[in-house]
Amino acid sequence: VKHRRYAILAPGRFASDAKTAHGVIAYSADETVAVIDPSCAGATVRQVAPHLACDAPIVASVRDALAFAPSSLLIGTAPKGGALPSDWRAFVLEAIAAKLEIVSGLHEMLGEDPEFARATREHGARIWDVRRPPEVPLFSGAVYATAAPTLLMVGNDCAVGKMTVALELTRAATIAGTRAVFVPTGQTGIMIAGWGISVDRVIADFAPGAAEQLVLQAAQGEPQLIVVEGQGAINHPAYAPVTLALMYGCAPDALVAVCDPTRERIEGYDTPTLGYRELIRTHEALLATVKPARVVGIALNTRRLDETAARHEIMRAHAETRLPVDDVVRFGPGALYAAIVPELSKQHACAVS
Amino acid sequence: VKHRRYAILAPGRFASDAKTAHGVIAYSADETVAVIDPSCAGATVRQVAPHLACDAPIVASVRDALAFAPSSLLIGTAPKGGALPSDWRAFVLEAIAAKLEIVSGLHEMLGEDPEFARATREHGARIWDVRRPPEVPLFSGAVYATAAPTLLMVGNDCAVGKMTVALELTRAATIAGTRAVFVPTGQTGIMIAGWGISVDRVIADFAPGAAEQLVLQAAQGEPQLIVVEGQGAINHPAYAPVTLALMYGCAPDALVAVCDPTRERIEGYDTPTLGYRELIRTHEALLATVKPARVVGIALNTRRLDETAARHEIMRAHAETRLPVDDVVRFGPGALYAAIVPELSKQHACAVS
Repeated sequence: VKHRRYAILAPGRFASDAKTAHGVIAYSADETVAVIDPSCAGATVRQVAPHLACDAPIVASVRDALAFAPSSLLIGTAPKGGALPSDWRAFVLEAIAAKLEIVSGLHEMLGEDPEFARATREHGARIWDVRRPPEVPLFSGAVYATAAPTLLMVGNDCAVGKMTVALELTRAATIAGTRAVFVPTGQTGIMIAGWGISVDRVIADFAPGAAEQLVLQAAQGEPQLIVVEGQGAINHPAYAPVTLALMYGCAPDALVAVCDPTRERIEGYDTPTLGYRELIRTHEALLATVKPARVVGIALNTRRLDETAARHEIMRAHAETRLPVDDVVRFGPGALYAAIVPELSKQHACAVS
Repeated sequence: VKHRRYAILAPGRFASDAKTAHGVIAYSADETVAVIDPSCAGATVRQVAPHLACDAPIVASVRDALAFAPSSLLIGTAPKGGALPSDWRAFVLEAIAAKLEIVSGLHEMLGEDPEFARATREHGARIWDVRRPPEVPLFSGAVYATAAPTLLMVGNDCAVGKMTVALELTRAATIAGTRAVFVPTGQTGIMIAGWGISVDRVIADFAPGAAEQLVLQAAQGEPQLIVVEGQGAINHPAYAPVTLALMYGCAPDALVAVCDPTRERIEGYDTPTLGYRELIRTHEALLATVKPARVVGIALNTRRLDETAARHEIMRAHAETRLPVDDVVRFGPGALYAAIVPELSKQHACAVS
């Protein structure tokens, strides 16, 4: 695989609203050589987002980014509804004219846009619409025979860190000498891992089938652990169907609940998030008749809390649920991994033998 | 609206596996003039399916059907996975050559098939792919302000009669002098009502938005009651995401549980169906934080039971749940309608005033 050199497009949004950009910078094996955001041009990525530990420059234009020899322009956000903001078109056209590859995780397929399609033909550039789903079969149940234990992330809302926790647990497995595979189910995960299906982009009837295919594909490498990125939340008014498709389609052996304890309402809706025990009960009850699985740990996202408050919340969640609880970003994934995965592997080995 | 005259294509399947055909014959305002099924050619529809009370002839070929002056060839089944059985292609091509309109509820878009597209151009015929979804916005919550009470069908499996119960309750409302509108969410319902969205064909992220748009569209006619056809089952390994999309997207005020009491497993999967109380608890628990709604009645499909067994099961379901229970096909929809809708309307009027 030829490595990409990304210029990441996030005008006006890099500091506030660029989940895709941040995820790729933090976890992709591909290098980010520049970020395009006029609102903080002149700074480095690290100055705006210290946790990313990346010294790439932030510049004001595609032309400025070209000085750093990018191979690709990556669309750095996934706005609600998934359309390209209209004032971003000029950036994309300029990048195509400079023969950069366009990498997009938007719902809107940039390759089907007549103006972009014409421009890519004219300049010999290409567009990778990461979210374009392949044809998948209906859910069959073949996934129930998967040899390795499968761990699925669920959560109390979107954008609370389900992908990050999956990546961190995969990393902890690797450090512990376990062959683990991260299964991407959304656009940022696909950009990071270089494969996967954006399950939210699949026709609803086939979404569990897509989830099943992902796990079957992961299992082909004969891993010892399969870690699936989650999506949405089970009481999210818009995205819960995708959450459920992953729960039934991946047929996980265990779940990790990823929660931002400061998130009181589902973002953008007047729906309360579920508390720890309700979250556990809801997921376990739904799976009970389909493919029973337990929530085996809680990964808290405490970035809005100071360290004392974070430790307090971890203790509170543990007291309430009696489960292993940690913040795998703040305190590293090793402890949570050690508390849940060896036990899971042992149980799975007994169950299948 | 110009009425259609249907020749329904169901070779080898009309008696056993033609849910679409049966639904259209029973409930559409459009007339069925012939059914094409060589395996029972010579009989009438009524002889094969007495409950349909239809005297259209069953014939062996498209050519034989043409004697009855059809306007349209309707694909009479919705096979798992939604592709056209390959041995049906010749029938479709012959119908196109006879300038019939092709009406299809398959996942596979017949209008995109190169051979069919070429044939329709050549003969000046057209194809209506009923399941082709329109562009819909994300779920917004606008549906929460709907003036009329909304009743959603849920069930213990696919193909237990959710559409039929919705149509029968709509009919009972009309008889009772209530302006009710049936909301189609699947291909057969769309063929019957002439509008709607096949929610299972919508991109997963947008499925609740599609459900919301359907209710908003139904509300434009200022009905006194909105009755939504359900899909799938909440513990169906493949189709539950669509069930959940309807639950959150339609924001119903109440649910009717449609159950075939003889269905012990989800058809095609090794998953047990939920009992009455578990079914009620699961749906109500999921809706509790999103838009609370209660299951207000149970519509049993007792066609596999004799009348004594049917009455016994109705009593058992009532004893177990304390809810109104009936078989609206066997005993008519009047009693169940009277037991649930006036109360629902009264509560809804209080809630919105």
